[in-house]
Amino acid sequence: MDLFIDRSELARSLASIQGVIERRSARPILSHVLMHASADGLKLTATDEEVAYIGELASSVNEPGELAVDAASLFQVVRALDDATVQLKLGKGDRLEVRAGRSFFRLPGIVAQEFPPLPAFDVRGQAMIDSGALRRLIDQCAFAIATDENRLGFNGAHLEEVGPDCVRMVATDGHRLSVSEAAFEGELALPPRMLLPRKGLGILRKLLDTSNEAITLAFGDNAMQVTRPGQRLWFRLLDGEFPEYKAVLPQSSHHTVTCDHATLVSALRRVSVLAHDRSRPVRFAFEPGELTIDIRSSDRGEVTERVVIDLEGEPLTAGFNVRYLQDILGAISTENVQFDLSGELGPARLTGVGADDAFFIVMPMRLS
Amino acid sequence: MDLFIDRSELARSLASIQGVIERRSARPILSHVLMHASADGLKLTATDEEVAYIGELASSVNEPGELAVDAASLFQVVRALDDATVQLKLGKGDRLEVRAGRSFFRLPGIVAQEFPPLPAFDVRGQAMIDSGALRRLIDQCAFAIATDENRLGFNGAHLEEVGPDCVRMVATDGHRLSVSEAAFEGELALPPRMLLPRKGLGILRKLLDTSNEAITLAFGDNAMQVTRPGQRLWFRLLDGEFPEYKAVLPQSSHHTVTCDHATLVSALRRVSVLAHDRSRPVRFAFEPGELTIDIRSSDRGEVTERVVIDLEGEPLTAGFNVRYLQDILGAISTENVQFDLSGELGPARLTGVGADDAFFIVMPMRLS
Repeated sequence: MDLFIDRSELARSLASIQGVIERRSARPILSHVLMHASADGLKLTATDEEVAYIGELASSVNEPGELAVDAASLFQVVRALDDATVQLKLGKGDRLEVRAGRSFFRLPGIVAQEFPPLPAFDVRGQAMIDSGALRRLIDQCAFAIATDENRLGFNGAHLEEVGPDCVRMVATDGHRLSVSEAAFEGELALPPRMLLPRKGLGILRKLLDTSNEAITLAFGDNAMQVTRPGQRLWFRLLDGEFPEYKAVLPQSSHHTVTCDHATLVSALRRVSVLAHDRSRPVRFAFEPGELTIDIRSSDRGEVTERVVIDLEGEPLTAGFNVRYLQDILGAISTENVQFDLSGELGPARLTGVGADDAFFIVMPMRLS
Repeated sequence: MDLFIDRSELARSLASIQGVIERRSARPILSHVLMHASADGLKLTATDEEVAYIGELASSVNEPGELAVDAASLFQVVRALDDATVQLKLGKGDRLEVRAGRSFFRLPGIVAQEFPPLPAFDVRGQAMIDSGALRRLIDQCAFAIATDENRLGFNGAHLEEVGPDCVRMVATDGHRLSVSEAAFEGELALPPRMLLPRKGLGILRKLLDTSNEAITLAFGDNAMQVTRPGQRLWFRLLDGEFPEYKAVLPQSSHHTVTCDHATLVSALRRVSVLAHDRSRPVRFAFEPGELTIDIRSSDRGEVTERVVIDLEGEPLTAGFNVRYLQDILGAISTENVQFDLSGELGPARLTGVGADDAFFIVMPMRLS
């Protein structure tokens, strides 16, 4: 292996890899990035065996070859180099030689044969989606995934097709639920069990930060691939079965509340200063024209916030976990927000007024 | 107590207080801020009994009074308020009532009598110093203070007068030493033992971030006060005796090296990627025209960096802790930097070329 490559391109790809590798794995090879140089350029592969990242970089390759090196060390070295171009060369004793300007590094490597092969991927279906829409799906659902990895079925985001050319992402931890939809083009051919892992979604979300082009999604029986020019992300689907979420969606609403989004967010930020005990609900009293939010007896103090609202239906008082509402409001970007309440203890439905592509359910808590 | 006050002024003062209070103290009162309202305005006091912060804020006081409240809670509340003006009022049961716009908080308080009184402060001398100069003194010395609080004498920064109207700050942990000087006006009348604690210097440094006016320094027998309009910081001096540092200052130099500051900083940043073992020195070979810095046998790899230098005197090879050199170079802001080396194991003196107001000493380490 002997090649010249653009330093900032290489650094960017190595930065993406840092989220994939396992630094504290029992298998040191999983903290390594596999470099594979050929006439096509330089391919970088990193995996923790649940998620894999494959980056393809333009490079002037003098001699093909491959080697795995510690991904964190290589990233730190490349990031600190000054010159625009870096030479990477396989040296004696499976060492990677890095040269740039007046700098010379020799980093220990592991032969490529020890790098775990990526599983075969049989494409069932493939579709294109706008990268902004995919970002929105993730932002509106990721927070509702159960944080406990052992809660099978709740520990990932579910995907399904709804109607022609529309894909729906759903996530729930049993206390709140997110549903978000976006258009796609192509044939998704989703497998029946379609549960995307939290870690993979997080890595994908970061990749999308700098993306404006269309993204290709491909599905196999147990895995998914996301491709954008020069980068591919593979992730294994989770085993569990997503709960029958449709049964909990409220069928009717007797109280409809609309209010200014920013005003409510601001009021909840203040209430949350005293809402440290998550097992205790905060009191929301919806009255004609005004919502009163209060915490009356915390050892940290008391708070009362009043927010102007428009209420259709009878007044209602319900208890909510403020943090759950904050998460949902953070995923809504419209000027006004709507609550559809089905009763003191019935599921509440939240939407951005005018945004039909997502809704959120949160379960009230019993007020003591 | 009943007053109206500007929200952002109050938030700014409470932000400064967060670094002073002890959150995990056995004495809950030390996590509180004492609020004292009088015809002069609102005075805020916070202390951990080693450092005290006193802020004086303009305020429209309807009723004087005082109360201590949890400083972190109050800061979070005030920071989250939307309105420009906040009402603070002493309510029933020693509670602080906070009102702004449609928000109302009631925070538990402790009667002012339980707040520890600040020690008497007998001013020996008082001087004015430019806030930029005081910032520089701290930035050039703080990193060299021993991090081990139990190393008496090494655990603070020393102040002394050198010549007329010039004050010198010195700090050392035994491995490296900083000396930084600045002009002042007035009578310092420094006590013989003059050791400033690390925590107090850190708080002072933060206050100076937003300061451009002259600062008043006042010294008592065991304490120091720093005053700027509306804010006063008091801190107890440390007990230990600063070491006789002048004995270790190198008297002569046989090798003088100058080089570009930014180039050397950049080379050391790369070397530090592999310099994880602080007990092992990095090799610096000063030759005519070129400095070679290298790590030859680390299990993380090898690195060689070359830097263009100007060398007067014979070539010399010495071992240094890279981190110590990085700290010093970070405290130098000139375009070029000068090393005066007295031998393989003799103290090395570093200065910014053209900056006579500071110098730094670092001890080489034996190369194996």
